[in-house]
Amino acid sequence: MPRSFLEIAFDGTAYAGWQVQPHSPSVQAEVERALAVALGEERVEVTGCGRTDAGVHASSFFLHFDHAGPIAEPERFTHSLNGLLPPDIAVYRLLPVPDDGHARFSATERGYRYRIHHRKDPFLRGRSYLFRPALDVAAMTAACAPLLGRHAFTSFCRTGSDAKTMDCDLREARWEALDHGCAFVVKADRFLRNMVRALVGTCLEVGQGQQDTGHLARVLEAQDRTAAGRSVPAEGLFLEHVRYPFIDP
Amino acid sequence: MPRSFLEIAFDGTAYAGWQVQPHSPSVQAEVERALAVALGEERVEVTGCGRTDAGVHASSFFLHFDHAGPIAEPERFTHSLNGLLPPDIAVYRLLPVPDDGHARFSATERGYRYRIHHRKDPFLRGRSYLFRPALDVAAMTAACAPLLGRHAFTSFCRTGSDAKTMDCDLREARWEALDHGCAFVVKADRFLRNMVRALVGTCLEVGQGQQDTGHLARVLEAQDRTAAGRSVPAEGLFLEHVRYPFIDP
Repeated sequence: MPRSFLEIAFDGTAYAGWQVQPHSPSVQAEVERALAVALGEERVEVTGCGRTDAGVHASSFFLHFDHAGPIAEPERFTHSLNGLLPPDIAVYRLLPVPDDGHARFSATERGYRYRIHHRKDPFLRGRSYLFRPALDVAAMTAACAPLLGRHAFTSFCRTGSDAKTMDCDLREARWEALDHGCAFVVKADRFLRNMVRALVGTCLEVGQGQQDTGHLARVLEAQDRTAAGRSVPAEGLFLEHVRYPFIDP
Repeated sequence: MPRSFLEIAFDGTAYAGWQVQPHSPSVQAEVERALAVALGEERVEVTGCGRTDAGVHASSFFLHFDHAGPIAEPERFTHSLNGLLPPDIAVYRLLPVPDDGHARFSATERGYRYRIHHRKDPFLRGRSYLFRPALDVAAMTAACAPLLGRHAFTSFCRTGSDAKTMDCDLREARWEALDHGCAFVVKADRFLRNMVRALVGTCLEVGQGQQDTGHLARVLEAQDRTAAGRSVPAEGLFLEHVRYPFIDP
């Protein structure tokens, strides 16, 4: 069976996450339902590029599925999927991929953005974390520098994770100043559960001057989740980038 | 009684517009309710910088109100107002103004933005107009150039308007290209009812190549509403800028 990727985006507010769950709405369930209708199949199974937690958004998320025959008119197919999907999930592209292309295991890099705003904003509710204290963006970026490269990110992983290894190759980790807010931009080959939200929570301690810029390096070194800061809320988190060897970015 | 201005922002999706109306939710009613609580008054009347139609947003909107005594702690006052207001309305600033400062009549310039996107986007629903055809942004900007300066904008005003004069001094009118979309930026001393949405609808005819770049000048000259294009939906429209002689921009 030919395999295709879909690039989608979703506002995660209404969902218990990407992954299908017995009694909660999930993005995966919506996509599988729409694909089954569009393909005229009883049931279609899709595999996502990763889990996302409840309330987390994606401005670019990839999934794969197998289909019986070729999809003759990709534009028409994605247009019809968009009509079948709710307004908070959009399909951007249908991409033919090699038969062994895997949305999760073939990904070579993922990138997240975490958005913070300092004052109430009607256009950011549910899509950014309202955090009132001022933050020293340069200090937070400086504190992240020692984390770049390959390390065990045990301190930034939710306890009880079943990951085989805690090693991640962190390729970018910096803060951007925005009007009345800021954003954390982070890229790595892989991320552990809750890792971005724990990194951000720990950065906030530095940004408020409660810890110096050596703090994140010490927390990393400790390999102990209790050394890191709290996990910040899901609503500010966006998966925004996934790289594959066979897909142009 | 001392007079103050409030700078607010609102997502207009849930409202029948700024103006109080008998049986519909309005931004003004919400603000008056919150101000009455914050000031401990039975009833507070506010005057906005202008009407906005149902579903139109404002990223910066000014209103004035009079209060019995001085407001001692402006920061605390706006914080408490933000707590009293729903999530789709935010207060940015409380500003002392001259006693004859008037939110509507003292304004010397207003600026709107109209946002268009070409593909379904979960993060833009309700805040941008989904218009699929490709648009020639340079041609639309060129078509707007002859409209700059003072003219009677009769052709771009909703019929049945009770405005005494149709003259507006158009100071900026241009299109910006964005990822998968574009935006119209327009500034004038004043705007007639439905004017921005009629300007955008007429620009779209040029942007799609149905009319040449001389079209907007001819429509302006005609002084006839039926010469202009259709009015585009409210959801893409944002009031984003109001200038007063006594307020720093």
